[in-house]
Amino acid sequence: MSAALHLAKPDDLARLLPLVAAFHSEVELQSTDEERKNALMPLLEGSPHGAIYLIGPSKGPIGYIVVTFGWSIEFGGLDGFIDEIYIRPGVRGRGVGAEVITSLAGMLKSVGMKALHLEVEPANDSAMRLYTRCHFKARDGYLLMSRVL
Amino acid sequence: MSAALHLAKPDDLARLLPLVAAFHSEVELQSTDEERKNALMPLLEGSPHGAIYLIGPSKGPIGYIVVTFGWSIEFGGLDGFIDEIYIRPGVRGRGVGAEVITSLAGMLKSVGMKALHLEVEPANDSAMRLYTRCHFKARDGYLLMSRVL
Repeated sequence: MSAALHLAKPDDLARLLPLVAAFHSEVELQSTDEERKNALMPLLEGSPHGAIYLIGPSKGPIGYIVVTFGWSIEFGGLDGFIDEIYIRPGVRGRGVGAEVITSLAGMLKSVGMKALHLEVEPANDSAMRLYTRCHFKARDGYLLMSRVL
Repeated sequence: MSAALHLAKPDDLARLLPLVAAFHSEVELQSTDEERKNALMPLLEGSPHGAIYLIGPSKGPIGYIVVTFGWSIEFGGLDGFIDEIYIRPGVRGRGVGAEVITSLAGMLKSVGMKALHLEVEPANDSAMRLYTRCHFKARDGYLLMSRVL
């Protein structure tokens, strides 16, 4: 199973949308096709705020990963967030996720990124195992809070 | 007490650095003057990844707030992170923090930001009260994990 990463461009939207819809459905995240398209397009068009990579053959991707770019005074510069990662159910359990994250982390480090973050549900055992194997550590003693604007 | 916000520019570095040093010392975050300067300057110079605002009179600020910009497919576009907020100890307890966050949230919403996030230590009662009063809610059931690159 190839876990090659291809930077997704506007031409990839049609291949990307069904994968994103499948992911949102799986994690019970309510979103319409229009909302997904509006959130994805700026990143496909080269926004400085993030990038989307197709996993596997670019004509028949087996998943995608969205990494968004931020900044952290504590970490000393550019940081990133794994905003979404999805691998088709039929090809899970073969190490694709770990390969993708390791490859992405190396690439982002090489362009100067200082730290990579993600959010996980602690009850999701397979996700916890994957991220722990990929050297992510819980930000102990901190709570993430959000406000919709 | 005026909690006016001024976008900090490179010329403000000398006024900003002692405030950032005081904050890092207070929260026991190890950083050198050089590291702080390197992390702050790109934002002062107009990086798309964030902005720094001085709180109060621009010639004699009483604090600062660093907001970094990211992207979220879930929230549907641009999101932000309150990376650091600091108010001089002598002027705390007068509502400056709430005023600053409310004003910043309104400004960021007006330019299209969808959601604002922050990290807090749950044991820090005054911070929890401030953020709750400012309509931040815990991302229940999620754990933040980080990997230094």
